[in-house]
Amino acid sequence: MKITTLGEPRFPSPLRRSVRDDLRLPADIVLDPKNPSKASLSFEIAGPREKLFFDPAKTRAGIVTCGGLCPGLNNVIRSLYLELHHAYGVKEVLGFRGGYQGLDPDLGLEPYVLDTDFVDSIHTEGGTALGTSRGPVDIGKAVENLIRLGVDILFTIGGDGTQRGGNALYQEARRRGHPLAVVGIPKTIDNDVAFVARTFGYLTAVEEAEKVLNCAHVEARSVRFGVSLVKLMGRNAGFITAGATVASQDVNFALVPEVPFKLEGERGFLAALEDRLLRREHALIAVAEGAGQDLLEQEATERDASGNLKLGDIGPFLRDRIKEHFRQRGIPVVLRYIDPSYIIRSTPADAEDSILCDRFARNAAHAAMAGKTGLVVGCLHDRFIHVPIEMLATEKKQLDPDGLSWAAVLAATGQPAKFG
Amino acid sequence: MKITTLGEPRFPSPLRRSVRDDLRLPADIVLDPKNPSKASLSFEIAGPREKLFFDPAKTRAGIVTCGGLCPGLNNVIRSLYLELHHAYGVKEVLGFRGGYQGLDPDLGLEPYVLDTDFVDSIHTEGGTALGTSRGPVDIGKAVENLIRLGVDILFTIGGDGTQRGGNALYQEARRRGHPLAVVGIPKTIDNDVAFVARTFGYLTAVEEAEKVLNCAHVEARSVRFGVSLVKLMGRNAGFITAGATVASQDVNFALVPEVPFKLEGERGFLAALEDRLLRREHALIAVAEGAGQDLLEQEATERDASGNLKLGDIGPFLRDRIKEHFRQRGIPVVLRYIDPSYIIRSTPADAEDSILCDRFARNAAHAAMAGKTGLVVGCLHDRFIHVPIEMLATEKKQLDPDGLSWAAVLAATGQPAKFG
Amino acid sequence: MKITTLGEPRFPSPLRRSVRDDLRLPADIVLDPKNPSKASLSFEIAGPREKLFFDPAKTRAGIVTCGGLCPGLNNVIRSLYLELHHAYGVKEVLGFRGGYQGLDPDLGLEPYVLDTDFVDSIHTEGGTALGTSRGPVDIGKAVENLIRLGVDILFTIGGDGTQRGGNALYQEARRRGHPLAVVGIPKTIDNDVAFVARTFGYLTAVEEAEKVLNCAHVEARSVRFGVSLVKLMGRNAGFITAGATVASQDVNFALVPEVPFKLEGERGFLAALEDRLLRREHALIAVAEGAGQDLLEQEATERDASGNLKLGDIGPFLRDRIKEHFRQRGIPVVLRYIDPSYIIRSTPADAEDSILCDRFARNAAHAAMAGKTGLVVGCLHDRFIHVPIEMLATEKKQLDPDGLSWAAVLAATGQPAKFG
Amino acid sequence: MKITTLGEPRFPSPLRRSVRDDLRLPADIVLDPKNPSKASLSFEIAGPREKLFFDPAKTRAGIVTCGGLCPGLNNVIRSLYLELHHAYGVKEVLGFRGGYQGLDPDLGLEPYVLDTDFVDSIHTEGGTALGTSRGPVDIGKAVENLIRLGVDILFTIGGDGTQRGGNALYQEARRRGHPLAVVGIPKTIDNDVAFVARTFGYLTAVEEAEKVLNCAHVEARSVRFGVSLVKLMGRNAGFITAGATVASQDVNFALVPEVPFKLEGERGFLAALEDRLLRREHALIAVAEGAGQDLLEQEATERDASGNLKLGDIGPFLRDRIKEHFRQRGIPVVLRYIDPSYIIRSTPADAEDSILCDRFARNAAHAAMAGKTGLVVGCLHDRFIHVPIEMLATEKKQLDPDGLSWAAVLAATGQPAKFG
Repeated sequence: MKITTLGEPRFPSPLRRSVRDDLRLPADIVLDPKNPSKASLSFEIAGPREKLFFDPAKTRAGIVTCGGLCPGLNNVIRSLYLELHHAYGVKEVLGFRGGYQGLDPDLGLEPYVLDTDFVDSIHTEGGTALGTSRGPVDIGKAVENLIRLGVDILFTIGGDGTQRGGNALYQEARRRGHPLAVVGIPKTIDNDVAFVARTFGYLTAVEEAEKVLNCAHVEARSVRFGVSLVKLMGRNAGFITAGATVASQDVNFALVPEVPFKLEGERGFLAALEDRLLRREHALIAVAEGAGQDLLEQEATERDASGNLKLGDIGPFLRDRIKEHFRQRGIPVVLRYIDPSYIIRSTPADAEDSILCDRFARNAAHAAMAGKTGLVVGCLHDRFIHVPIEMLATEKKQLDPDGLSWAAVLAATGQPAKFG
Repeated sequence: MKITTLGEPRFPSPLRRSVRDDLRLPADIVLDPKNPSKASLSFEIAGPREKLFFDPAKTRAGIVTCGGLCPGLNNVIRSLYLELHHAYGVKEVLGFRGGYQGLDPDLGLEPYVLDTDFVDSIHTEGGTALGTSRGPVDIGKAVENLIRLGVDILFTIGGDGTQRGGNALYQEARRRGHPLAVVGIPKTIDNDVAFVARTFGYLTAVEEAEKVLNCAHVEARSVRFGVSLVKLMGRNAGFITAGATVASQDVNFALVPEVPFKLEGERGFLAALEDRLLRREHALIAVAEGAGQDLLEQEATERDASGNLKLGDIGPFLRDRIKEHFRQRGIPVVLRYIDPSYIIRSTPADAEDSILCDRFARNAAHAAMAGKTGLVVGCLHDRFIHVPIEMLATEKKQLDPDGLSWAAVLAATGQPAKFG
Repeated sequence: MKITTLGEPRFPSPLRRSVRDDLRLPADIVLDPKNPSKASLSFEIAGPREKLFFDPAKTRAGIVTCGGLCPGLNNVIRSLYLELHHAYGVKEVLGFRGGYQGLDPDLGLEPYVLDTDFVDSIHTEGGTALGTSRGPVDIGKAVENLIRLGVDILFTIGGDGTQRGGNALYQEARRRGHPLAVVGIPKTIDNDVAFVARTFGYLTAVEEAEKVLNCAHVEARSVRFGVSLVKLMGRNAGFITAGATVASQDVNFALVPEVPFKLEGERGFLAALEDRLLRREHALIAVAEGAGQDLLEQEATERDASGNLKLGDIGPFLRDRIKEHFRQRGIPVVLRYIDPSYIIRSTPADAEDSILCDRFARNAAHAAMAGKTGLVVGCLHDRFIHVPIEMLATEKKQLDPDGLSWAAVLAATGQPAKFG
Repeated sequence: MKITTLGEPRFPSPLRRSVRDDLRLPADIVLDPKNPSKASLSFEIAGPREKLFFDPAKTRAGIVTCGGLCPGLNNVIRSLYLELHHAYGVKEVLGFRGGYQGLDPDLGLEPYVLDTDFVDSIHTEGGTALGTSRGPVDIGKAVENLIRLGVDILFTIGGDGTQRGGNALYQEARRRGHPLAVVGIPKTIDNDVAFVARTFGYLTAVEEAEKVLNCAHVEARSVRFGVSLVKLMGRNAGFITAGATVASQDVNFALVPEVPFKLEGERGFLAALEDRLLRREHALIAVAEGAGQDLLEQEATERDASGNLKLGDIGPFLRDRIKEHFRQRGIPVVLRYIDPSYIIRSTPADAEDSILCDRFARNAAHAAMAGKTGLVVGCLHDRFIHVPIEMLATEKKQLDPDGLSWAAVLAATGQPAKFG
């Protein structure tokens, strides 16, 4: 798919380097002699361009951060500002406050005008200096506001919904004849975005999750029949659970959305847990929040306004089922349930994520200055790319139950490939 | 009160130093000219004694860790072993497993025989290498077992209940003619033991709690009307909450058992919270688990088997009341509730607690070798003392609402001295 | 000794609590029946007073930080400001920049006028937000400047020299008829101030030093005949070395100023090191920078301008002597020398030091507002006290080679009480 | 290049998954329409194979760790053991002690026989549980010993020299008719190995280096004309310096081997440093140990036995030159020189490196069990590959001064692309 451009770039770039528009990165890079000629999906490669669409001296950019917290948000804001201001000489960078609400003058507060003082040390703190919120914005009012403020470029840092919103903003701006470059930086601590090998904040989350698993391991080992159950982030994908499990090497059972499991039965999870407890007297379980949704469905009875079943929370659900199981067996388990999500997601980015945020941000600035729009910055095979926003909607990234990452989890835990 | 001794010490100590039995440390050390002649409570000073009651070469000691986890348990075990083995040359040190259950041969596992390998690096890990459990032990069976194993000294690391149990063990052993030295090392992460200025693990808990408060602060500040509510340990006393509040300096409301508060009313907590939210748009609340028990009593309806009211949990209670309050006011708060107890208590001891554990342990060894029994090691005015176990029962340490610690909390939070 | 007061306090304090001037804390608190009637040194107890000498609404205070970095400087600045501004309502607090140089308008920069924004998050960073420098100031020019600026109170955060300078400032101001309250907060990472049981920053330093010792231990153990030598801070006293040694439990030899040692000879340090290396194949040494000065003197040849011998640095000296010793013995040691001072002293205060800084600062504010001058805030037996500056000069605190702290070091290392 | 195989694999693999030998990963993956048909270097893809050359039940493997410490060594040892023992059922895994010396029975100690207890918690500690040493081994004696011990597979964890040694071992074993699979895992904290996008330990080093830079920044900012100079690892390549600079965002000058610089002259480094100092009054410099070797050559006078110039150390060299420069200018800089190498390299692996180590180790096990030899495991484009050892010798990885990583450094520091 081609990346949309607002028009012909014609201003010379102040940067020393540039990347050509016609270089492509294929999605599939393994050469298979048995299947040599497949036509491959490929992507435009990110980086500074020789010509800019926007004249920096007259350009006003805006940044907005949306959705849940994620380590690195402030690093992205900071590097966006520094690249725009120092490298390109952009006139003004606005920081919209409180997520998409900040685009709507009726809901939000006046945007900050960013400067060097504002961004000076924000990267040493978790959270987002611009504030955030969930939910969409009235596209019409937002675009009107962007036009009124003279915003040429909008950087949207957020998840799927945020990026779809960004697309809608660009489309609406075009309809109104305002050339608005909307460039997204995908933000999900879960690391489940297609065409993004690693989203920022993910590694920091794994690092923090590993620490919590270590604590939970200490708890489990210190008592007889100690069971620690830790719920980790990951609604659609178990990357954090898998990563932290391999890093920790102390988890005995890892449960993720990609690998359904049965609780009951001879080969079910509870039997396996019981077997381990009788052998080793303690167990550590890591469960992704999106695991076992089918089990929750079976027990759900309430429906929401739209008639959808209201699912429970897998953490307390598992906790209660484990307790009940061992109560019936007469085994006096001491179960500790730990839900560390807020502690994990609010930490500052670690060194690797800091570097990653810097790259995402600067590549986003390059794309926007070249007049590209309707895209997010992606990252494949250790290279940064441009991904049309529409492509994000079609696919989510998940763990491959037959792949290396999950094999490493099975090896680290010793758990069977399948429960039930 | 005098410390009980099993008999006349007559073996020379291998240590170079000694402290005389007749030195005393007064509980009250401030000189007040308006009240000059008060008779003061005073304590025997801990330390090595010139003569030992036990002949090291024939002595067998045992260690048991009981109750909830607390940073530093492994340090205490390690330093007890090292002092007994290296400094005194004690024949054998047993590690009873799984708390008091380990004293009962019908319930517990065979004790470990400690050696240098066993203790080598245990201090770098949280939890207890001996395991722990809650609850008492059959005193008769335990003493019989101790006699059978030839245990002369038992170190009991645990809270009030554990120490009372230790006293019972000593009394029963005496009844049976077995001179058993029982020396307790008070363990409570809450720091609420009388005659112990600082219990081991407390400072580490404050350090970890401060980190959680910082995360919670980031959460609260990143959204409009963000409220973070952190429940910290402290059933009878708010020391952890107070310490972490002063260390963090970002808490706006600290709630502890020692300072009752009202929720409703013009000067109640909810009004104060609302006022702050409207002014500053975010708030951070730290609540000790034992705070506001009177509020829970009012809402309790169930009674347990003994007819006592079953109280709820102040954390979820407050969370729900805050949500309800702002729902009624139409203020869309984003409330995060965080309960980090298991993460805090399972961390290894920090440097200061490591040093403190070492002191407690070595002083306990000194007391036991001198034949003292029925005591716990205390610590007042920066000195270690011997406290008869009976004295622990009579008094619990609490924050003084008119004292320096609480004044520092009020200064750090800016909260009123009183809600309601 | 009595604390000097600028005059009769007559303004009512806005604080709810107060401490009477006539309460005293004895230096010696142990009751010894063999020596019952000794007249004891005692101190005024710190805390808010009922009446103030300064009218807060008309008072201008200044803060200056001097000498080397120490964890907690920013916490002290912050809590001073908050207590003065919020609790007392003081009109203005100036932050003099760059140490004592900042008092001299010819050398220094204009002082900052502190406000809530300035102090907001400084406590999360190491160093000092006011800047620092070494060396004295021209007393006459400084006092003239303080009078010109209308400064009534000066808080001096620094070591001995700084406090003596503070005393000179107060004396000179008195000579000129300007009632200047100079209140010192003792700052030494080495923890060697008399009448201050624990100086702020010391515990953080021990914590950081322990981490470095752990790294050094890993280095030593990973190769055959690995020797790691770590130089820690402590010019006159080995408190950091002792504390970190006990916390780490992995040090084999701790060398401090208080315990002289011989290198050569059958019972010298090098023989003991060799013995250990041959038995265990690795060794970890912690040396305080002030240890072994007599050894350096023997080898010193240069003299400085005043004719004093210029001593070398014990770290490289020991490193070279160890290398030479084992070269002669034909034992291929792999020696790593580590000097982590700058990394240790520039870290932010840990939780315990944060709390301690807060106490020191608020008690200093109380003393100053009451019109007390020529004192530093001290801390004995877990209580804060007022110490006349002159008393600091007469005594330095050192480790007692026959005391508990050093005994704990000997126990942790297993080293002999004496080398040579 | 093809990977050498000891013979036809014929034993079925116990693993569920496998990767075909004929899949290849091209080194160059960017599609360039202007240069479409280039023949590309490509690599065999790592992973489990369908058939094994070695019968696990009869196979004995050995592991050796060589050269300087690097975070993650213990993780690699642990995962090698676990994959061989648990996944493949290999009979015995030996841990050779003290690097290549451990292969020579005249120099080394008896190898450990690894088991689950041995590896249980080694990954939580820095260093290597097997010990290490520098330098080669007598190939003949080593191979004789391997044959004597019945070792079929040897895993060599080390740098270039180690891998070349591994190759020599395999060649010599072949000459003697012993089918020895030698599989290398490249170890360099500097991250400068060709065909390895990221070596294990590198990220942890960046994380630790960033912390040191933050301390150095605090030092520099706390005094007027404060200059902190930090020497980081990187003999041939500046990856650690670059990574830590981008992560920290506080470095003002980063000096690496790939970008030569002049000290003197109007556009030299010293002039740029002076300019910054006069403007901002503090500066933070990060220098890779291999930077500026041409400057050292100019000043070198001594030659070693082979007649090569003995170069100085860039750290102290720069320190002295900076001091001298500002002494001449009369600017009283306060310079802190920090060399944290031993502290950095001895830390345990962080979460990401732990995961990376696990992958390297398990892929090495797969290659060896399939009978592949004379290779190291590499990693390109986020995939693991087999790299013939000979290819390592031909090329070292360096920072590209025109690439993204260095651009990020220039952006973070604001330093000119070139000094002089």
